[in-house]
Amino acid sequence: MTSFFFYPNSIAVIGATSNPKKFGNAVTMNILKNKNLECELYLISKKKQEIFGFSTFKSILDVPKNIDIAIILVPAKVVERVIDECIEKKVKGIIIVTSGFGEIDENGKKIENMIANECRKAKIRVMGPNCVGIQNTDIELNASFIQTPPLGHISMISQSGSVGCATFYEMERFNLGISKFANIGNAIDVTFDEILEFFYLDKNTQIISLYLEAVREGKKFFTTLREISINKPIIILKGGRTSIGMKAARSHTGSIATNYKILKAASDQAGAVMCETMNEFIIALKTFSVLPIPKGEKIGVLTNSGGTSVLFSDAAEIFDLKFATFSEELKNKMSPYLIPLVKKVNPLDMIASAAEEQYYQITKAMLEDENIDIVVACCVIPPFLEMKSEEHYRGVIRAWNDLKREKPVIPLFVFSENFEAVTQLSKSEEAPIFYTPNNAAYAIKLLIERKKFIDRYRANLISK
Amino acid sequence: MTSFFFYPNSIAVIGATSNPKKFGNAVTMNILKNKNLECELYLISKKKQEIFGFSTFKSILDVPKNIDIAIILVPAKVVERVIDECIEKKVKGIIIVTSGFGEIDENGKKIENMIANECRKAKIRVMGPNCVGIQNTDIELNASFIQTPPLGHISMISQSGSVGCATFYEMERFNLGISKFANIGNAIDVTFDEILEFFYLDKNTQIISLYLEAVREGKKFFTTLREISINKPIIILKGGRTSIGMKAARSHTGSIATNYKILKAASDQAGAVMCETMNEFIIALKTFSVLPIPKGEKIGVLTNSGGTSVLFSDAAEIFDLKFATFSEELKNKMSPYLIPLVKKVNPLDMIASAAEEQYYQITKAMLEDENIDIVVACCVIPPFLEMKSEEHYRGVIRAWNDLKREKPVIPLFVFSENFEAVTQLSKSEEAPIFYTPNNAAYAIKLLIERKKFIDRYRANLISK
Repeated sequence: MTSFFFYPNSIAVIGATSNPKKFGNAVTMNILKNKNLECELYLISKKKQEIFGFSTFKSILDVPKNIDIAIILVPAKVVERVIDECIEKKVKGIIIVTSGFGEIDENGKKIENMIANECRKAKIRVMGPNCVGIQNTDIELNASFIQTPPLGHISMISQSGSVGCATFYEMERFNLGISKFANIGNAIDVTFDEILEFFYLDKNTQIISLYLEAVREGKKFFTTLREISINKPIIILKGGRTSIGMKAARSHTGSIATNYKILKAASDQAGAVMCETMNEFIIALKTFSVLPIPKGEKIGVLTNSGGTSVLFSDAAEIFDLKFATFSEELKNKMSPYLIPLVKKVNPLDMIASAAEEQYYQITKAMLEDENIDIVVACCVIPPFLEMKSEEHYRGVIRAWNDLKREKPVIPLFVFSENFEAVTQLSKSEEAPIFYTPNNAAYAIKLLIERKKFIDRYRANLISK
Repeated sequence: MTSFFFYPNSIAVIGATSNPKKFGNAVTMNILKNKNLECELYLISKKKQEIFGFSTFKSILDVPKNIDIAIILVPAKVVERVIDECIEKKVKGIIIVTSGFGEIDENGKKIENMIANECRKAKIRVMGPNCVGIQNTDIELNASFIQTPPLGHISMISQSGSVGCATFYEMERFNLGISKFANIGNAIDVTFDEILEFFYLDKNTQIISLYLEAVREGKKFFTTLREISINKPIIILKGGRTSIGMKAARSHTGSIATNYKILKAASDQAGAVMCETMNEFIIALKTFSVLPIPKGEKIGVLTNSGGTSVLFSDAAEIFDLKFATFSEELKNKMSPYLIPLVKKVNPLDMIASAAEEQYYQITKAMLEDENIDIVVACCVIPPFLEMKSEEHYRGVIRAWNDLKREKPVIPLFVFSENFEAVTQLSKSEEAPIFYTPNNAAYAIKLLIERKKFIDRYRANLISK
């Protein structure tokens, strides 16, 4: 059980400092910054008697209360001594932030093993070394030296602290948020699987995301993924997919990167999403955060830009998506809102004069059509005819809301990323927006694959 | 010769109106907005006697001066009559913005052919119908209904007006600019090749970009590409690469989309860049706008984020890039700036504490190394240790400037797009920045392929 790491009653920061150029300062500041965190904090420093107005202790052994987690930030050469004190103190868990162990050389690996053995004997759980720490935004706990992400329902395990950090930047941009975060570095004790299981049981975690380079026990990992993924989407980004990447991973976390093809096959079978790029990773997080799973595969497309729907059609075919054929009923329903020039075929090119009302009515008609499972609303925001930059988007989302968001709607607003009004509307409505045909098609592919996985799973259950 | 379209002495807007909900208004406004444009403007309107304080003419035949270009925005059913008047007026060229011709049905195609024949007989050149118009930012001419892009050195032909429009949005975001722009719609007379040849001779055009769906005379097009591409990079985005995309293209511009594989093979041979996605298209424009062509293929990578350089290494292998092996000399040169933990291998992981000085010194050392042709500076902007968000980037660009920008530098600042200070610095320095490992690797691939193309071209010249 590793849940106490995310819900500690007391923390000791060993290597706390008021020097803003040290990681011991960053972790201390991050813990202190969160005003609603209910957790006792003890600062351990050999040198200072007071930090930010807090009295410090020379050693964790001097702290008069029990400690749940000790966060170690002292230099590598004194880590072993500090660990001995933590063992004597009977802490529940240790996070070793300090780097310079197994990722460096064989000697570092040896020291890691010794630490792991000692702690195992003492029944103390260890995260790290060579990690940035953990976070639980639900209780405002940031026990790491990276920034606090926005609050949300994605939980993440990252084998790279900085990939976690970069992901947070992008989440902020796209209005996504984090529930729990863990970077376990060289992972000498607590494993991915344990944290995955904790995320599985955690009620605030709706989506699980992983950046990983190496998997220790492949079979166990696969079983865990399979167990979880039917209930919560799991999004994986794998570093070290290629031989050069694997070599780079080795010098990064000291581990031999797991063969990508095997991992990909396993995660496909387990129903997890294996992304090829950081871009796909973010798109996947976005997709499962805001879109429902479709009931079928058929797409209806509307657009004010012929070129854009041509490019979307190309991407759609590459991702093997299926276009609906418009029924006579649907054509009749759409007719009153279209100018005579418009040919009633899928993709429906309403041409450049189409405005909010057309986007609203046509999106609505397609969403109401039983022959269409997913609606793609393409748009290039027109810089003419006094149109408002957010009106087309507003039309699409109004229709989606009217239909209770039951079917996925994919607003594809090509290169409209800098339109503040649209961005704000997508945030305030908690609604999807995609900026390139490829990302839109990829999002649909993900939704359809998840639908198929759920169908397969249910069919197996019934046939059992 | 089509150059007079881009340098007109007089323009008549036929279908000008003060109604802001009409395209005739948008074109008129765009021409009037540019204060430095030296070109006579005549507004033709059946209904109004005055528009924006300008006296109008009932017919182009009433204009007392010669007209270089007539821009036609009247409804489709009166276009033929208006064309007759233009012929009588002996205009040099006509831009038919009005849609509702060959892209609609066979009858529309028939009318197009008639117009084309009549104008050919009268020696009048025609662009369109079904187009947004043309632009020449060098003289502040915006004879289209879309927005004026930033001034720059990229010239673009787009078979879709809205793809042009979307590209302009993205250019603004990435500090790229346009010299000339043409959207020729159904292209009944003036061809891609003619405009390409004009761009080739135009001294302000340094890069040529194309969005196209169909090519009429493949062989001629290929010859034109080959002739131009050694002197100016040509970046192509092809809509209708797939069968679904081709179908969509047909209802878009009424033309049968050209087979992608054939076009791709031809453009590869001609030394043009054929992009697979809109994202690649923008990255290609960015790459050739700001980066020099490398002398060789070997990459040196520095990073403060192990995970990011692992992901870059994966992307690099997929794009078949080659990593340099660090010489002892280089290792010694870099040593003073690196903490002892750092392993001197490529990619060089300087870990999270690396700041401006490390980025400056290491980038510089790699740029000075004769064994390294391209330097990739990976970074996740650290939210700790009081680092400034732009300092790492500043270090990289300082080193690049010191070395007179002779080798390509690829700053890969993962997901740092919302850091205003970095964005501003990249703009004011006119320096590159990439936000994902894949885009960075793709940019390098483009540079290396261009280098190889130039080498092949020269070798052929010599062997001849």
